[in-house]
Amino acid sequence: MLKLGIIGATGYVGAEIVRLLALRDDIKITTVVSNSFVGQPFSAVYPSLRGIYDNICDKLDIDEISEKADFFITALPHGVSTSVIPRLLEKGKRVIDHSGDFRFRDVNVYEKWYKVTHNAPHLISNAVYGLPELYRNEIKTAFLVADPGCYPTCSILAIAPALENRIVSHKDIVITAVSGVSGAGRKSELAYAFCETDENFKAYGIANHRHTPEIEQELSLLCGKPVMVSFTPHLAPFKRGMLATSYMNLDSDNLSPADIHSLYVDYYRNEPFVRILPLGQLPETKHVAGSNYVDIAITVDSRLNKLIVVSVLDNLGKGSASQAVQALNIMAGLDETKGLLSPGLYL
Amino acid sequence: MLKLGIIGATGYVGAEIVRLLALRDDIKITTVVSNSFVGQPFSAVYPSLRGIYDNICDKLDIDEISEKADFFITALPHGVSTSVIPRLLEKGKRVIDHSGDFRFRDVNVYEKWYKVTHNAPHLISNAVYGLPELYRNEIKTAFLVADPGCYPTCSILAIAPALENRIVSHKDIVITAVSGVSGAGRKSELAYAFCETDENFKAYGIANHRHTPEIEQELSLLCGKPVMVSFTPHLAPFKRGMLATSYMNLDSDNLSPADIHSLYVDYYRNEPFVRILPLGQLPETKHVAGSNYVDIAITVDSRLNKLIVVSVLDNLGKGSASQAVQALNIMAGLDETKGLLSPGLYL
Amino acid sequence: MLKLGIIGATGYVGAEIVRLLALRDDIKITTVVSNSFVGQPFSAVYPSLRGIYDNICDKLDIDEISEKADFFITALPHGVSTSVIPRLLEKGKRVIDHSGDFRFRDVNVYEKWYKVTHNAPHLISNAVYGLPELYRNEIKTAFLVADPGCYPTCSILAIAPALENRIVSHKDIVITAVSGVSGAGRKSELAYAFCETDENFKAYGIANHRHTPEIEQELSLLCGKPVMVSFTPHLAPFKRGMLATSYMNLDSDNLSPADIHSLYVDYYRNEPFVRILPLGQLPETKHVAGSNYVDIAITVDSRLNKLIVVSVLDNLGKGSASQAVQALNIMAGLDETKGLLSPGLYL
Amino acid sequence: MLKLGIIGATGYVGAEIVRLLALRDDIKITTVVSNSFVGQPFSAVYPSLRGIYDNICDKLDIDEISEKADFFITALPHGVSTSVIPRLLEKGKRVIDHSGDFRFRDVNVYEKWYKVTHNAPHLISNAVYGLPELYRNEIKTAFLVADPGCYPTCSILAIAPALENRIVSHKDIVITAVSGVSGAGRKSELAYAFCETDENFKAYGIANHRHTPEIEQELSLLCGKPVMVSFTPHLAPFKRGMLATSYMNLDSDNLSPADIHSLYVDYYRNEPFVRILPLGQLPETKHVAGSNYVDIAITVDSRLNKLIVVSVLDNLGKGSASQAVQALNIMAGLDETKGLLSPGLYL
Repeated sequence: MLKLGIIGATGYVGAEIVRLLALRDDIKITTVVSNSFVGQPFSAVYPSLRGIYDNICDKLDIDEISEKADFFITALPHGVSTSVIPRLLEKGKRVIDHSGDFRFRDVNVYEKWYKVTHNAPHLISNAVYGLPELYRNEIKTAFLVADPGCYPTCSILAIAPALENRIVSHKDIVITAVSGVSGAGRKSELAYAFCETDENFKAYGIANHRHTPEIEQELSLLCGKPVMVSFTPHLAPFKRGMLATSYMNLDSDNLSPADIHSLYVDYYRNEPFVRILPLGQLPETKHVAGSNYVDIAITVDSRLNKLIVVSVLDNLGKGSASQAVQALNIMAGLDETKGLLSPGLYL
Repeated sequence: MLKLGIIGATGYVGAEIVRLLALRDDIKITTVVSNSFVGQPFSAVYPSLRGIYDNICDKLDIDEISEKADFFITALPHGVSTSVIPRLLEKGKRVIDHSGDFRFRDVNVYEKWYKVTHNAPHLISNAVYGLPELYRNEIKTAFLVADPGCYPTCSILAIAPALENRIVSHKDIVITAVSGVSGAGRKSELAYAFCETDENFKAYGIANHRHTPEIEQELSLLCGKPVMVSFTPHLAPFKRGMLATSYMNLDSDNLSPADIHSLYVDYYRNEPFVRILPLGQLPETKHVAGSNYVDIAITVDSRLNKLIVVSVLDNLGKGSASQAVQALNIMAGLDETKGLLSPGLYL
Repeated sequence: MLKLGIIGATGYVGAEIVRLLALRDDIKITTVVSNSFVGQPFSAVYPSLRGIYDNICDKLDIDEISEKADFFITALPHGVSTSVIPRLLEKGKRVIDHSGDFRFRDVNVYEKWYKVTHNAPHLISNAVYGLPELYRNEIKTAFLVADPGCYPTCSILAIAPALENRIVSHKDIVITAVSGVSGAGRKSELAYAFCETDENFKAYGIANHRHTPEIEQELSLLCGKPVMVSFTPHLAPFKRGMLATSYMNLDSDNLSPADIHSLYVDYYRNEPFVRILPLGQLPETKHVAGSNYVDIAITVDSRLNKLIVVSVLDNLGKGSASQAVQALNIMAGLDETKGLLSPGLYL
Repeated sequence: MLKLGIIGATGYVGAEIVRLLALRDDIKITTVVSNSFVGQPFSAVYPSLRGIYDNICDKLDIDEISEKADFFITALPHGVSTSVIPRLLEKGKRVIDHSGDFRFRDVNVYEKWYKVTHNAPHLISNAVYGLPELYRNEIKTAFLVADPGCYPTCSILAIAPALENRIVSHKDIVITAVSGVSGAGRKSELAYAFCETDENFKAYGIANHRHTPEIEQELSLLCGKPVMVSFTPHLAPFKRGMLATSYMNLDSDNLSPADIHSLYVDYYRNEPFVRILPLGQLPETKHVAGSNYVDIAITVDSRLNKLIVVSVLDNLGKGSASQAVQALNIMAGLDETKGLLSPGLYL
């Protein structure tokens, strides 16, 4: 029985992980840490879990919680992770972190975009970017896995097959993406109040969103050239889900849509959670919301010789919580798909 | 040109009043008071008003703002109104208040349900309950009008014709009502965050909601007997709108649905904002959202000899802001319907 | 391995059953029947199931599908069930039906409220009302189970403990209920179009909704007296979920809220899916959406000596699909909770 | 008093025009034509208009309705407009059409993208593209005005200042846009059912949406070169509103954001309905929903030397109905802003 602790457990990502794992018979969540709700049952914060996961929230005491678990998932703000995780690693724990703190290979890129000084740069080289489709082997033995951002997961998986196979230019990639509101976390901010968000649509973080360099890092590694992308996130009035529309310039016009489709199918042939749609079909967020699946569709605009890829996932699923569970399964040597194959609710 | 000041202007009720009045040529909003946004343009808080109402928010300085306007609308929390309004009245201003502070004829009822001591009980006897359908004449000359609560407006108008005409029992009246989220005001509370409210439905304030005694007061006055009602509010995931389903026991079974329908039509024959639906039709909140109308439908359950009345309004319209404008029109001797006849958006 | 067929599988109830069962290792859905989509993969209709349940939809040919399965779940319009189910029963199949056709003990009540002639009245006496909390033993051996309506499930479970224990009057029970839009089924009707439904709230079916006599039948059986209820359904802009607010008159004022609460806790002590909330807490539909749970809270209005019970469930969960799976588990001698203990998504 | 007829009046665009004009004292809607609702009061179709506009729907009889009005607004499917409008023009009527039929200067472009043969190509040369910001003078005297598409209005106004001033390349323009669901019209299609649309997000019409050539036509005329754009529309779960994010490559890096901002402000200096936001602010659809305003914000991505423009409007406002009213005001020699200056509801 794998013993797991979750730190920052009462945010939406933490709650989703509890939901995914509460009934597992091979994993036991032995501690849920939440400074805001110390001493309260987890199910008082999330009454959907009443009778299912009623454990009491612990305070963040590394010594105490280290006694309870061997694996930890941290869902903390960036900058906080760097102060907590080193102490867990010192105690021999294996950690999956949800912040941006350990996603970057170059600490300068991190510090520039996040506008903070990194507290634990010595750990960066051993951290593994937790995207199983790209780093499965590294995840297996990692002690520190950086769960990828939701936008990067959605974008990288959409672009990787084309870019790695050099059928598109590495320049002038434009990504427009849309997130559900849960991506902002469990916050009492007016901007995310129902009356301010419902029936509304907006762009934000234009030209400066922190997921930009994360996407660029991984795309650059895939094609061996420095990639810069124009990435624009938007906020739409739904709770869960994410869609990215990625525009790439095809390098030649000799490839038919069917060729490119085959290339995508091949690229993900062995991936249990990436579904390439038949040509002519387009994905919708409701097809994946509540699940760990990513659905991807390609369209060729022959007038402009562009490849347009639409990808969808659940920002709380493959975009964070269930992707962390997938990494956990891999790290623990369990069946990677355990507990993750369920379809979304559709409605 | 009537000069109006709004105190507590940057809440949703205040903003709705500004929206309704900004383009009027007979009323000028000369001061908008908002302690949270002093010195900022009103349109920075509500960008929908950019170029339409860009006045700078004032701080609450009674002496200063009294120089600017003759009429004031206050949209302040209960308990605060009682400290601000006496000073405005002393300066000869006429005031419409949105709080519960001056809605009750019996200060004890107020203090019991609101759990505060009333600071200005001497003003109660001169305050007028601002429901034009019941108190039009009193409003004309009033210096202090208490704008009714949204639930009371919706409930009282639904029940008044039956109760005043003694066709139903004054006992065992049950009112189930539903409000849109804007009824909670412009708040950064987690309970009203998009992710907590969207796709959710709940009851609240069962057996203790403060609008209960307000409904009871007015119904008691209408029938001359002490009325107690069972009132239960609910919160639904939409921004504007309110619906009340009111259950009454018919006193006799001699009245046909058509008789009762006629009675309702007659009761509101001269009311410009109350629309009685034809028998067999039911109202929906989208028929009135964004307007000052109240739509009311009656159904007779002959199996149970019950009269069931469904009424809808916009909680920010006839439920608060536009009802205040209606009262303002009346107080100022203007055409009561001025600026208020527009239909809602439907969608 | 239990072999199951679903008839009328591409409606929302059918799709939810497929979602719940697709990954079960003890049940295999061997045929999904949908006249509208014959020959198409089920996952073409519900792309959330791509790669998870891709079986081809069959046409309704009783002989053919009878070869494929031993249990059938029918999700057909009322009046259609009566023509299909007798033929399945003749072939020795065990059936769970979602229509109203077999929920009534008195065929006259059915014919009066449904305004059709019943085609198979001889089967009524052997049909079992599929509410496990009341009829668990009967379900075990039944060949024909009538899955209860969503509103009746939500209402009956809320009222049963009080009524069966005679602490409330069997007269003057008022039930106000609200359903999410999926309760209307998968329909291309303008009334359920997004633009007509979103940001809207309405009552419907006042005094004549077909779930009324179903509630009355079961409540009458529980207390041994003829019960008539005033039942009013409403439609709110969310997809899944149902809430009922039930008003009852307490028969004495000797019972404290704690007493009544204990009585409710006791009544459902052994029920895995009914959760009685602590006094002072109220349920929300998001606490149960996507699950088989029912959450129930009681409030005593001591001013009026009324018991007010709020109950919530998922209309596609305990209100139909997952309740059918619960019945199926019972009929098949499996663990009743198998595959049903998962919490809802919360968001 | 201008007498106006609306043909195809019971769709959402028609209803919005009625809403905007019903209380005008200088315009009278003398006939509303709707084949689906002949003989029924308009307010039976849109109960929000009960008591406000109860006129009976007429059938489409050109002779009869021509007697009633001098101006007509047609809200008909493309291909139908071409058969109705010539007969109105023959009778000397002035017409504003909402379809795509008369938006194109080159009939071949129309026929290629709309896949129909144009029935009245002789009228094209006299039709005016009804975007007041570009064609105000032509609209004044036009007999046939083609009301622009919603996406083209939102995109063209966002790009025009940069392109006409040659600060961006006319190549590689990418436009990602999002519409509320009312853009699909009042339809009973499953794809737009609440349960299929709510909490969902999707792209559609990739590389083949009919608004693409309309955008290209106007942008080409603005810069004198053939412009091709990559245009991708998306559908989001809200009723009203539209946002476009337009990406352009800056032709030089000598222009500061402030320079470009000034250029935009200057370009629209005299436009009553175009609001250029201060640098650093971004528009949201709720700022314009329910109004005739367009809000536009520019951002410079200096890393990529790109200009990113976000523009918002109400697809039923400036995107169709209120823009038609603006054109009508111009055609009739009325104050162009009459009845259109009201802000949106914000919520």
